[in-house]
Amino acid sequence: MRSIILSIGDEVLIGQVINSNAAYLGKELLALGMPVQRIITLPDSEEEIIKEFRSAFRNYDVIAVTGGLGPTHDDITMKCVAKFFKSKFVLNEKVLAHVKSVFNRRGIEMPPANIGQALVPEDAVVLENKTGTAPGILIDKKGKVFCVMPGVPYEMKYICTSGFFPYLQKKYKKRVRRVIKNKTLHTIGIGESLLAQKLGDIDKIVRKGKDFEVKLAFLPSNYEVRLRITASAKSTIKAERLIEETAALLKKKAGRYIYSDMEGSIEKTVGAILKKKKLTISAAESCTGGLLTSKLTDISGSSAYVMDSVVSYSDSAKIRLLGVKAATIKKYGAVSEECAIEMAKGIRQRSKTIIGISVTGIAGPGGARAGKPVGLVWIGYSDKKSTFAKKFIFTKDRLRNKDIMAKMALEIVRQQLTMSD
Amino acid sequence: MRSIILSIGDEVLIGQVINSNAAYLGKELLALGMPVQRIITLPDSEEEIIKEFRSAFRNYDVIAVTGGLGPTHDDITMKCVAKFFKSKFVLNEKVLAHVKSVFNRRGIEMPPANIGQALVPEDAVVLENKTGTAPGILIDKKGKVFCVMPGVPYEMKYICTSGFFPYLQKKYKKRVRRVIKNKTLHTIGIGESLLAQKLGDIDKIVRKGKDFEVKLAFLPSNYEVRLRITASAKSTIKAERLIEETAALLKKKAGRYIYSDMEGSIEKTVGAILKKKKLTISAAESCTGGLLTSKLTDISGSSAYVMDSVVSYSDSAKIRLLGVKAATIKKYGAVSEECAIEMAKGIRQRSKTIIGISVTGIAGPGGARAGKPVGLVWIGYSDKKSTFAKKFIFTKDRLRNKDIMAKMALEIVRQQLTMSD
Repeated sequence: MRSIILSIGDEVLIGQVINSNAAYLGKELLALGMPVQRIITLPDSEEEIIKEFRSAFRNYDVIAVTGGLGPTHDDITMKCVAKFFKSKFVLNEKVLAHVKSVFNRRGIEMPPANIGQALVPEDAVVLENKTGTAPGILIDKKGKVFCVMPGVPYEMKYICTSGFFPYLQKKYKKRVRRVIKNKTLHTIGIGESLLAQKLGDIDKIVRKGKDFEVKLAFLPSNYEVRLRITASAKSTIKAERLIEETAALLKKKAGRYIYSDMEGSIEKTVGAILKKKKLTISAAESCTGGLLTSKLTDISGSSAYVMDSVVSYSDSAKIRLLGVKAATIKKYGAVSEECAIEMAKGIRQRSKTIIGISVTGIAGPGGARAGKPVGLVWIGYSDKKSTFAKKFIFTKDRLRNKDIMAKMALEIVRQQLTMSD
Repeated sequence: MRSIILSIGDEVLIGQVINSNAAYLGKELLALGMPVQRIITLPDSEEEIIKEFRSAFRNYDVIAVTGGLGPTHDDITMKCVAKFFKSKFVLNEKVLAHVKSVFNRRGIEMPPANIGQALVPEDAVVLENKTGTAPGILIDKKGKVFCVMPGVPYEMKYICTSGFFPYLQKKYKKRVRRVIKNKTLHTIGIGESLLAQKLGDIDKIVRKGKDFEVKLAFLPSNYEVRLRITASAKSTIKAERLIEETAALLKKKAGRYIYSDMEGSIEKTVGAILKKKKLTISAAESCTGGLLTSKLTDISGSSAYVMDSVVSYSDSAKIRLLGVKAATIKKYGAVSEECAIEMAKGIRQRSKTIIGISVTGIAGPGGARAGKPVGLVWIGYSDKKSTFAKKFIFTKDRLRNKDIMAKMALEIVRQQLTMSD
């Protein structure tokens, strides 16, 4: 079972629209056991469209086409369908009534151009579109399913879930031999290659049999690496078991770095732990400039555990608002283990929270000094039992450094709070 | 001049990643006069990749390939390049030194797997990647340009602007007949339709002649509207003149709302004003949770004007850290004009800065009370001469509300500081 997505429209080619439709279709068709092998974006050109129709119909089982169904001159998809399938087009009264009713509800008379949206190929299944005017159409020929939908994302999704996907499920019930599942593990603060090293022999993770396969992909972005496990098997139960076995193996090897095995950010994970353990937190931020607290408060309900925070950008603010000793700054500098520790302790005591966290570093591009390069950061942690600071060096630009420094601080909180679990 | 984009990676096909790289390349290659005719996303499969390389090289002038250059087992793009071009691969010492230095800076030894990233085809131009480890490579053969870049968006963009695009511009200088230029004006706090109304008759802005064209696009996102002017003409000088004429016209009509006519954020604009006027600023944030100060400190050199800030998420923090009167909170609530004013004044006085800015509101989804809906925000401003607060209601989700609240606070600072200019 092989699928292809054809996205039609100049607006995608010139970058005015990001092709989120293809991502949606890719995800859903995979879940149906009909993985997408190609996504092709092509221009509003009859010749090019028909050429790709031909090639797609020859090589794939499921062809999902989106875009070019509007009422204006540049919408030519349906015309191409007619030519390609040598179909007669007939006026579908039900669709026409629907299009008219859409205009009626808005108190506008239907422009003549919209009549064309009710013309459908004689032998096509019409897929109702309650969210717009253009319906989807589906042609089932030579064992292949060819489906054309509008390019407006929510209209396309409506037609997929109400017409296209149920049709596929019913038709291919017996032919789908493989169920595909996937799961993503999220890590932070460890590079791609180092993570690979920790996981050890890749052939013990990635494996293939006669009727199953386990794949692993590394997806890196700014010091975060997601590990995507994909398993295919004969049944959902078997695929899920393969996923869980592999996830357990990865956790055994690199569990310390994995902060979540669900979709979600580090601030979500940390927020859930703080809430569950009924803890409170405050932050003293220098180089992250408020970003750490902003992340903490991105989570709805965070007022239960975030009390207040201080952005002590200047040395004097560190002294005045956090009680850092002037002597500490003079002797070690503001970007130092000692200062990070006094900041974390200071904010915890002054804000009367259970945890205090601090960040002091050099986001760049300016600010480097001898022995203190751009990207250097000290992250301080303090609770009643332990107070410490950890050093990291990041090498990106200012914004990415700020981002990973804030995330790393959250990761340290997570590690500290889950150590004894 | 025809271009094609080949996006390599299962993560795109299964919908885990939305292909924003293709949108970027589509936009930029169009601007260079080399419109993209196809975007093809293909799996991490040697056979499929080489098949598409062959077809692309036969049919297009410019082939832009992204993805699959990482150091792990699932990154096979370079291997396919080698096979397709029958190239010998050589160790590039400069790239190796760069990869090593990236690890060195972080104080980590380079894992052996990363050596592979320094292997490049013998006859390729190496495009430096200062933002990551994998370089881009460019092969110029039979009058065609074949460029391979990493899939990480900011790395790809870096290589495009520093290596790939300049190469194309130089090579195809004579073959491109139309010059396309564009400029974007940035507005904040005014809706799309109201902005259109202020601009008046669109036909006085958008115009077309035999050898020129001026287009205008409204690009709205979360209470910001960008106005993109695109001009095409026979020469750079003519295109630029059309752009400047149109920009001047738009500024005449809606100048008050335009905070920048360059790529750049409101925090950049405000930062430049603060720096130029030698002013200092501190913020008292409630619902934005540090995001306002984080934006201010996103600008390199902001330590010249940002001293400190307080995230007073709880009522007690507003009293303790800002000197807000308990009676004010009791009588008017924390989300009120009175509280916003006391917060702005309090942070200004305590931090001894010239400007104090405050934000208190309800980001949502919880927290609404009678007469105080989700999205309500009071933004306070205080300097020696004037202290006031302004009310806004935004209607998006938590993260978008936080974002526009922080931006609106910056916009108020901008308007206040440029009023007399």
